[in-house]
Amino acid sequence: MTIIGPQGFRAAGLAAGIKDGERLDLALVVNDGPQHAAAGLFTTNQVKAAPVLWSQQVLAGGALRGVVLNSGGANACTGPEGFQTTHATAEKAAELLGCGAGEIAVCSTGIIGEQLPRAKVLAGLEKAVAGLADTVVAGTAAATAVLTTDSRPKQVQIVDDDGWSVGGFAKGSGMIAPAMATMLVVLTTDAVADAATCEAALRNAVEWTFNRLDIDGGTSTNDTVLLLASGASEVTVSVDELTSTLTAACAALCQELQADAEGATKRVSVSVRGARSDADALTVARTVSQDNLCKTAWFGSDPNWGRIAMAVGRSAAMVDPERLAITINGVAMCRDGVAAGDRHAADLAGPEILVEIDLGVGDGVGGILTTDLSHAYVEENSAYSS
Amino acid sequence: MTIIGPQGFRAAGLAAGIKDGERLDLALVVNDGPQHAAAGLFTTNQVKAAPVLWSQQVLAGGALRGVVLNSGGANACTGPEGFQTTHATAEKAAELLGCGAGEIAVCSTGIIGEQLPRAKVLAGLEKAVAGLADTVVAGTAAATAVLTTDSRPKQVQIVDDDGWSVGGFAKGSGMIAPAMATMLVVLTTDAVADAATCEAALRNAVEWTFNRLDIDGGTSTNDTVLLLASGASEVTVSVDELTSTLTAACAALCQELQADAEGATKRVSVSVRGARSDADALTVARTVSQDNLCKTAWFGSDPNWGRIAMAVGRSAAMVDPERLAITINGVAMCRDGVAAGDRHAADLAGPEILVEIDLGVGDGVGGILTTDLSHAYVEENSAYSS
Repeated sequence: MTIIGPQGFRAAGLAAGIKDGERLDLALVVNDGPQHAAAGLFTTNQVKAAPVLWSQQVLAGGALRGVVLNSGGANACTGPEGFQTTHATAEKAAELLGCGAGEIAVCSTGIIGEQLPRAKVLAGLEKAVAGLADTVVAGTAAATAVLTTDSRPKQVQIVDDDGWSVGGFAKGSGMIAPAMATMLVVLTTDAVADAATCEAALRNAVEWTFNRLDIDGGTSTNDTVLLLASGASEVTVSVDELTSTLTAACAALCQELQADAEGATKRVSVSVRGARSDADALTVARTVSQDNLCKTAWFGSDPNWGRIAMAVGRSAAMVDPERLAITINGVAMCRDGVAAGDRHAADLAGPEILVEIDLGVGDGVGGILTTDLSHAYVEENSAYSS
Repeated sequence: MTIIGPQGFRAAGLAAGIKDGERLDLALVVNDGPQHAAAGLFTTNQVKAAPVLWSQQVLAGGALRGVVLNSGGANACTGPEGFQTTHATAEKAAELLGCGAGEIAVCSTGIIGEQLPRAKVLAGLEKAVAGLADTVVAGTAAATAVLTTDSRPKQVQIVDDDGWSVGGFAKGSGMIAPAMATMLVVLTTDAVADAATCEAALRNAVEWTFNRLDIDGGTSTNDTVLLLASGASEVTVSVDELTSTLTAACAALCQELQADAEGATKRVSVSVRGARSDADALTVARTVSQDNLCKTAWFGSDPNWGRIAMAVGRSAAMVDPERLAITINGVAMCRDGVAAGDRHAADLAGPEILVEIDLGVGDGVGGILTTDLSHAYVEENSAYSS
């Protein structure tokens, strides 16, 4: 169940001193081949972190030998000095691994606007290369070293019947609202796939998984999803085959991210159908998912469907108020735009809430996974940097 | 300082039994003339409450004799039965006041999706008409009867040197994000102004006041701003003159709304300049104002400008990360997209926070008044309907 599950990969995670104390903060994932095909998707935020700017350039080549990741600092809004830190990190990793810096991606996460301690990162990298292993312990250490406010590592492995697999880890519990990708995710596969196949399959999988997750509307400066393919299984896959297994792996990581979202007490799925278009359905689902009045009602286990109707109506999608239907946890709340019965018939006490919205104006469908807005979210986010 | 400050107006507010107990829940404002010019602005939410649908039709006539307002129920998502309640309310008021129903506006606020107790509303109206008075006590009772989660009535009167004035009240503390208007507001003036002058001046004033207030992004189903002109001062005003005094009155009510926002501990002003256009500036200000990570940082008095940079970057406005400047309470946090010094030099401990953002790419300016996101907001909104 770790990043080194697929053949051809090693990993390491350790405490480089970027964070205080002995907390793990530096991770390295290496692709030992025989192939080094790779693809990456990055944040759509116009303010991009230095490692995003670097890794986007690197991925244009379609090959990766390794990925260096750190927590304890996002290296965003850090100007030329920050970019030089990322560049020096890639150069150092390349030197240690015997490849070119253009085959090393870098990912960072943590507070925005502060410089990383470059010397500590570079010193930590030497230890990381020395500690590379294809063990579950090493894979889990890497998955742990990228965490910030996450409460636990998030790992996955999906084994295909044809003798190849996809492994991966993710980090992220806040500032999560995908527009392209939404956090740091590294995926590995031992399938034989070229860079174009990797990119096509990764785009497909992310569109239906990470891009449908929205914790707090905050598309970050550092979001990155990387896929590294070693070819070590010697099984060649098509885009469709790779998409299918990747989607399963990404969906599993999405559930982990949703369950570990900052302060979340409810896992909420907002499902929309009957929209004029799929895009409209997604717009409605996203507006409801980002609405603080809906999110606080979910926290209070309150079937206050009027707030959902409000959020639907203020969305940019085409809405006919007289055709709106809302169901919560299987109980009809609203039909033809008016109350469908006793709102308290819906039981929201459990940790799962399913909101189904039918706009009744077309065939468009779409959905978003989200969470409630709790005291713990406020607590955690009012004390993060100070 | 009340709705009956201008000459020619009477008001009443009482407990009609729509809410439990003896709480005031029904208000009436009457224009005794000699003129009855009026204008109204309404929510842009596609799901509109019955009283909004009714009052929009009424205002097409440009004249109002009276306004009936209730709290304890929004009469939204209530279908034909809800519309009939609004219609019956206007008919009853017209009968009692000796005018046509087409000169009576209706406003409702409270929970969405439940029918109003029609008989109680109509019985209450008889008492309201009997109790109409041009006293401060009556005006304040009316301003009190429209409150929901508000902690206090919000009233204003601005007296012009030329012998006329504007009075008014507002209600609203959550589900506030203006797209046209953003809560219930009734304004009166004794100036002589026709309906076209009223409408032009009201649009101007609202665009620069209520439409720049955003508590929680939730444009409600019931938002209404009404202006009633009695002409009783016999002073004829131009659009510019009326706009100027109306804007002062609306700005004062906006400050009241911001200060009494649900759970707010900080009054935050987000001011943007250097945008490609005024529209872009407003987009950035609104995105930052609605961002939960920014809002919780303000609650924690945390000068975490990186979250502001994140929100700026994910907005739909054109942003050049290398030109971004952010100042908080007068202290430069970010210049040319990187840290400008020690973030902790900014003191956010007080109740007022001024966030200034310079995009450095043009001449566009815009701003939004907002609040922080506190434990009290979560508490209040997780227990509202259940």
